[in-house]
Amino acid sequence: MPKIKNEPSSLVADWNTLHRVFIRPEDEGSRQTLVKYMEQILFGLHDFLNKHVGVTEEISLVKLAKEYKDTKINQDPQKKLADVIKDIIDEIAPRAVNVASPYFIGHMTSAIPFFMVHLKAITAALNQNVIKLETSKVLSVLEKQILAKMHRMIFKFDEPFYLEHVQNTETSLGVFTTGGTTANLTAMWVARNKSLPPKGKFESIEKNGFFEAMKAHGLERAVVLVSRRGHFSLKKAGGILGLGNQNIIPIDVDSNRSIDLEKLKAKIKELKADKKTRIIAIVGIAGATETGIIDPLPQLADICEALDIHFHVDAAWGGPVLLSKKYCHLLKGIERADSVTIDCHKQFYMPMTSGMVYFKDPKALDQIVYHARYVNRPGSVDLGIKTLEGSREANSLILDSALKIMGAKGYALMIEHGIETAGQFARMIRQRPLFQLVTPPQLNILTYRVVPLDIQKKLKTADRKKRQKLNAVLDDINIKIQRIQREAGFSFVSRTRLKAFRDDHHNTVVLRCVIMNPMTTVDILDEILDEQESIFKSLAE
Amino acid sequence: MPKIKNEPSSLVADWNTLHRVFIRPEDEGSRQTLVKYMEQILFGLHDFLNKHVGVTEEISLVKLAKEYKDTKINQDPQKKLADVIKDIIDEIAPRAVNVASPYFIGHMTSAIPFFMVHLKAITAALNQNVIKLETSKVLSVLEKQILAKMHRMIFKFDEPFYLEHVQNTETSLGVFTTGGTTANLTAMWVARNKSLPPKGKFESIEKNGFFEAMKAHGLERAVVLVSRRGHFSLKKAGGILGLGNQNIIPIDVDSNRSIDLEKLKAKIKELKADKKTRIIAIVGIAGATETGIIDPLPQLADICEALDIHFHVDAAWGGPVLLSKKYCHLLKGIERADSVTIDCHKQFYMPMTSGMVYFKDPKALDQIVYHARYVNRPGSVDLGIKTLEGSREANSLILDSALKIMGAKGYALMIEHGIETAGQFARMIRQRPLFQLVTPPQLNILTYRVVPLDIQKKLKTADRKKRQKLNAVLDDINIKIQRIQREAGFSFVSRTRLKAFRDDHHNTVVLRCVIMNPMTTVDILDEILDEQESIFKSLAE
Repeated sequence: MPKIKNEPSSLVADWNTLHRVFIRPEDEGSRQTLVKYMEQILFGLHDFLNKHVGVTEEISLVKLAKEYKDTKINQDPQKKLADVIKDIIDEIAPRAVNVASPYFIGHMTSAIPFFMVHLKAITAALNQNVIKLETSKVLSVLEKQILAKMHRMIFKFDEPFYLEHVQNTETSLGVFTTGGTTANLTAMWVARNKSLPPKGKFESIEKNGFFEAMKAHGLERAVVLVSRRGHFSLKKAGGILGLGNQNIIPIDVDSNRSIDLEKLKAKIKELKADKKTRIIAIVGIAGATETGIIDPLPQLADICEALDIHFHVDAAWGGPVLLSKKYCHLLKGIERADSVTIDCHKQFYMPMTSGMVYFKDPKALDQIVYHARYVNRPGSVDLGIKTLEGSREANSLILDSALKIMGAKGYALMIEHGIETAGQFARMIRQRPLFQLVTPPQLNILTYRVVPLDIQKKLKTADRKKRQKLNAVLDDINIKIQRIQREAGFSFVSRTRLKAFRDDHHNTVVLRCVIMNPMTTVDILDEILDEQESIFKSLAE
Repeated sequence: MPKIKNEPSSLVADWNTLHRVFIRPEDEGSRQTLVKYMEQILFGLHDFLNKHVGVTEEISLVKLAKEYKDTKINQDPQKKLADVIKDIIDEIAPRAVNVASPYFIGHMTSAIPFFMVHLKAITAALNQNVIKLETSKVLSVLEKQILAKMHRMIFKFDEPFYLEHVQNTETSLGVFTTGGTTANLTAMWVARNKSLPPKGKFESIEKNGFFEAMKAHGLERAVVLVSRRGHFSLKKAGGILGLGNQNIIPIDVDSNRSIDLEKLKAKIKELKADKKTRIIAIVGIAGATETGIIDPLPQLADICEALDIHFHVDAAWGGPVLLSKKYCHLLKGIERADSVTIDCHKQFYMPMTSGMVYFKDPKALDQIVYHARYVNRPGSVDLGIKTLEGSREANSLILDSALKIMGAKGYALMIEHGIETAGQFARMIRQRPLFQLVTPPQLNILTYRVVPLDIQKKLKTADRKKRQKLNAVLDDINIKIQRIQREAGFSFVSRTRLKAFRDDHHNTVVLRCVIMNPMTTVDILDEILDEQESIFKSLAE
């Protein structure tokens, strides 16, 4: 790693410095210095990223916290850019988490292609604000195009439909958000407003509020139905939107680990019998956060169509699988959704933070129109008229460029690698006597746990009470193994709790793997299992 | 601008390419190519940014839209990174808006110091997700530190307070958001929940919902009071949170252009008389979006304290003025707020998109706690437990680094330049007979309009009806001038409508200037006024 010269200098905030900071340097010397910094960023970090996983130990965190306790803002400049970059490379990066390591298979954050850093830098350099045309111009037009491309990928309408809507200033096929959480919130916001339409003196829920909506419609409750695997952003949306998060009703999963359709139908019947309750949406999951499982979307679409209920698909994780000709069939039925969430910073491999939400009906977003006099005037191209967020960077430029560089096929290769590697990993887990596969992968996520042979035997004949006791022992073992492996710093698998077995009231601790890094090989997965075995053995000693 | 060699190549999506894309290049040749791309990004864009303002003409937009109509996703890769960068520099950048131009004084988007691009690139390269410790480690710790620094800047508690809370995993001094809109929404969310506490069987509004909250408290309405100058995100928050946006009640401004305290008190009295209404918050503005005006914060604090109402200050724009020893007195009273919004991508000069919201009470954010089993477990350092948004990039690293490079004094210089240049600009407008200053600047924003001498005379003696007619003529003139100047592409001033004069029911069209670019000089402002004068003359011909 080349060293940046640490020049002593008078660090003063004066007008000359400010000018140098704002005016981009004209002379060749200054230009070269700036480029050198970028080299540091690209390759100084790179060296770090190849070396360790670095997920935190509890103890090191306490030590770390002690170093970040000064809360006074320095009056004078403390460091030059060169020193700040050096500090980040030398001090911050080694204490960050190496999410790019192929041994980091615990969360939905992973390596990104190196060109994404270039594209993010371009976006920052242009610093457009796509809330309005006057601060974004072509970027607003480009955003509408990429939104139409994604809409087409999901809903597959015909060419005339897209020609009509791609650059239509009166309609919106979707919006960029900052992630799946605000995408889901936006979808639930639209669904809430749509399902509680104007009635008599009640003009709209957006204007008159939730209480007036309930009164006008003779209701006391508005609910959303989703499987127990629903992302916690849906509960949060319930709280924010005034529904109350207890009214985001979880439905059990069946033996396929996806929503139990019989239980769903029974719950719908029960709710429909209560004239004071309205179902504002049913959510299907296309790639559950914890298990990767996809709900039976066609059957959910049938139910929603029959009852005229908003059908939302949370494909934050699974959406890009549509780009794989080999596996897009797994998402069949998504084209019948009313709204669909897809994250950019997950399987589109974009840097933090970017998500999207799409609506089949190009007028659906009219439910949440807001104007302002200084921007976002009615009838304008201003994209900020129909978004939860205000000012927004042009993340659409990154997605558009990435699709040009990778092609659908490039993304498909990564998706297929993940699904197929996860399949191999499942077989490897099944072959090892110490392990039990808990949720087999439908996509590229699976969960499993360590179950020592003697406990396996006991579990087979145990009654419910005894099974509970044994499972508590297993939970303890698996928590310990995950922690020790995490703290060792070579590899990282996450853990969660879920109802692993039907008719079991216990939430079982499981180890959770997300295979999205194309560099994660079967050999690496073998090493990770080996490490877990050896940790278990050391625990047993 | 150096040319990137456009090599013909077989653009295929295959496993080898993927590996090259993901594995950062090891050999010196590839490294140099990547650095060359960054040079293009830094200086290719730079060349563009020095040349034109480029705010759109209506007509060019229609033409532009025609070029962005293809909605099919390409199956194969279309372009190499080099070509994508070239296209962005040659095709996209010239059609974007040059928000960095010192002649672009129309919106709150401006030039950013060049080092911000480096810092954004670092953030993307590290790609940490601060929703949880397991994907961010030191960045979560660093974020808590910078949150404490900002809290201290606003609320000025003592050292023991900050030592207790800076790294306390049980408390939160604030959160990063994606901007002022979600910052305000978060503040209103907390205020809503706090003002409708548990009662009998009613556990919480978050759990049981808005309807149950109203019933439990014997209410029919929850309202927020804010001046007519309040940002439209507050109305949006009213809609989202279930209050209904008609219950974000606008209070007229007085002759100081800030909230009319007498009218506010009268409205509070009226609302208090209605036992079915609860005031959940009063919002003071510290830098109104349209006029830059600051509400009388100490008086608002008095009112809120006396009535035990949540006091929110929307300092999205004005917050960083606290760093100027010369002007921080303008924000006196902000330290008595319950919550404060500050944007990072405004006067902290960070790239899109980043905002923050602070709470005086370190337990206030407990109102909106959400846990999940796979992350964000209770008692953890996971920052995502108390945020509206889910996954988040480490924008705190950019703010922290910028404060190290600039110091409070560096920021103060920019703030002071803006305020003082706006003051000079106001004097220049007053000196020119053709112009009328409508809202004098308190910070660095002002509005004015063109009023030809003959109409000025007529206005002096006109009755109300005639004044309305004359104002309509003036509106038309000012809309035309703003449009023609915008389309000419040399400079950009925005326009809005506001009640310019007391006892006037007409919303007057005004030209709006935001002086935040340190390169914007008095000479440039003179040129902009000259251009407007000459446009007016050409219209009159």
